[in-house]
Amino acid sequence: MLAEGVHFTAACSPADIGWKLAAVNLSDLAAMGARPVAVLLGIGAGEGRDAPWAEAVAQGVAQALGRFGGALIGGDTIRCGAASVLSLTALGSVPPGAALARGGAAADEELWVSGTIGDAGLGLAIARGDRPEDRFLLKRYRRPSPRLALGLALRGIATAAIDVSDGLLIDAARLAAASGLQAEIDARAVPLSEPARASGVPVATLAAFGDDFELLFAAPAQRQAAVEEAASRAGTPVARIGRLRPLAGGRLRPSAAGAARVRLLAADGTELPLGDLGYRHC
Amino acid sequence: MLAEGVHFTAACSPADIGWKLAAVNLSDLAAMGARPVAVLLGIGAGEGRDAPWAEAVAQGVAQALGRFGGALIGGDTIRCGAASVLSLTALGSVPPGAALARGGAAADEELWVSGTIGDAGLGLAIARGDRPEDRFLLKRYRRPSPRLALGLALRGIATAAIDVSDGLLIDAARLAAASGLQAEIDARAVPLSEPARASGVPVATLAAFGDDFELLFAAPAQRQAAVEEAASRAGTPVARIGRLRPLAGGRLRPSAAGAARVRLLAADGTELPLGDLGYRHC
Repeated sequence: MLAEGVHFTAACSPADIGWKLAAVNLSDLAAMGARPVAVLLGIGAGEGRDAPWAEAVAQGVAQALGRFGGALIGGDTIRCGAASVLSLTALGSVPPGAALARGGAAADEELWVSGTIGDAGLGLAIARGDRPEDRFLLKRYRRPSPRLALGLALRGIATAAIDVSDGLLIDAARLAAASGLQAEIDARAVPLSEPARASGVPVATLAAFGDDFELLFAAPAQRQAAVEEAASRAGTPVARIGRLRPLAGGRLRPSAAGAARVRLLAADGTELPLGDLGYRHC
Repeated sequence: MLAEGVHFTAACSPADIGWKLAAVNLSDLAAMGARPVAVLLGIGAGEGRDAPWAEAVAQGVAQALGRFGGALIGGDTIRCGAASVLSLTALGSVPPGAALARGGAAADEELWVSGTIGDAGLGLAIARGDRPEDRFLLKRYRRPSPRLALGLALRGIATAAIDVSDGLLIDAARLAAASGLQAEIDARAVPLSEPARASGVPVATLAAFGDDFELLFAAPAQRQAAVEEAASRAGTPVARIGRLRPLAGGRLRPSAAGAARVRLLAADGTELPLGDLGYRHC
């Protein structure tokens, strides 16, 4: 679901909103190694939103499906309160037993991430007028690309996967928590785009920005070549950014995805202080 | 989708809202002769709505699924603007070729409807404080029962079906339009509950109230015994309320579901004047 005033503003183009609504859901399918099949779209049109606005949202959804797969097969359109609210259900398919999950990783496996981290958060700052214009970063924010081809290619290779939607650090903590482990990330190894590097924003901050829609996944060290071959087949760059460790000092609830689940290490192996790990849903 | 201020008020119990959200979607499956399989629930929590409220909505959904079938397998919970917005996607299954549709009826087939008509509209008036308390009518409004068993039993017997969600007249017009015909309904034959009959509200008004969630369907006259046997198997009362006619005086666009698509006849065969046919979605 995406809500006006929370996930997008009244100034956002309806086609961008529709694209993003589809992309964020397809990204969840990508993280499971699933292929998109069908999509149902719910449009709650707020005050001042007319039928052409709803139609433009649906067009944005259709554009994303045209690019990434899946058919728009139904849904609902209603009037709602002042602020618009959108809902999308994406259905995908995966062979029995082949779906990737968050909780399949083992200690000492390596952590990988696709693409680059922090671009969308910088794009959001640009959209808000808080940073100077940059088309690449804005596009990364407005028109994310779910990593579907990579998710498919990683079936049978990755042991666990999650899409980076709320921030690399918090999503790494979630994958680690689901696997009963702790994630250790090398700050130097986190892949950054040229504009993100040039922004001067520290890695610890970029890694807490949301909306990357990259895939974070784990694999045993001996599968390095298989991971690289899968990434090359999918046409998606990947980087090895760290590893999973047994959780030192006792046990947490398996579902606890707090700060104890993730460490960010400087080049000399010292731990960098972390602020917010990322976006937490209500 | 259901929105606060449009489909429910701030005073509604969250469990009732959740039940209704599930029931209105399962009713669409019933009208297709489908069996519920799985449900995805989206909760947009408005101002002042906390986690226990969202949990109570989900409990109401779960209660309805416990009664009618289907598993709650996922969804999303977000903060949204002032007013809450809920979204539910219901997935059902039906054997290939067996799904009922709106557009399969032929001229001179008979029209049937399940249960009784207008109760929920009276229940809404009671909930608004506009009519005296009546537990039966209130329950018909707050806790509708989708006619899933009847939908399954009508596979291979009904030629077209729709659920009565926006009003008997407008939904009859929609079925007729999808089938390229006109619906003719005998006012006397429209089934009314005792409290609805006692309300003194004319049939033409009751038949324009929404939220009945009964099934309206067509079948050839020679299948009358099969319809009655199916209804008996499903444990759902049905009534024969009219027939489908070729559309007199030329052709309308197949999709046009306006007043020309439905006539309500008095006992002497004269046409009763119609006001609004029912609720029209934006």
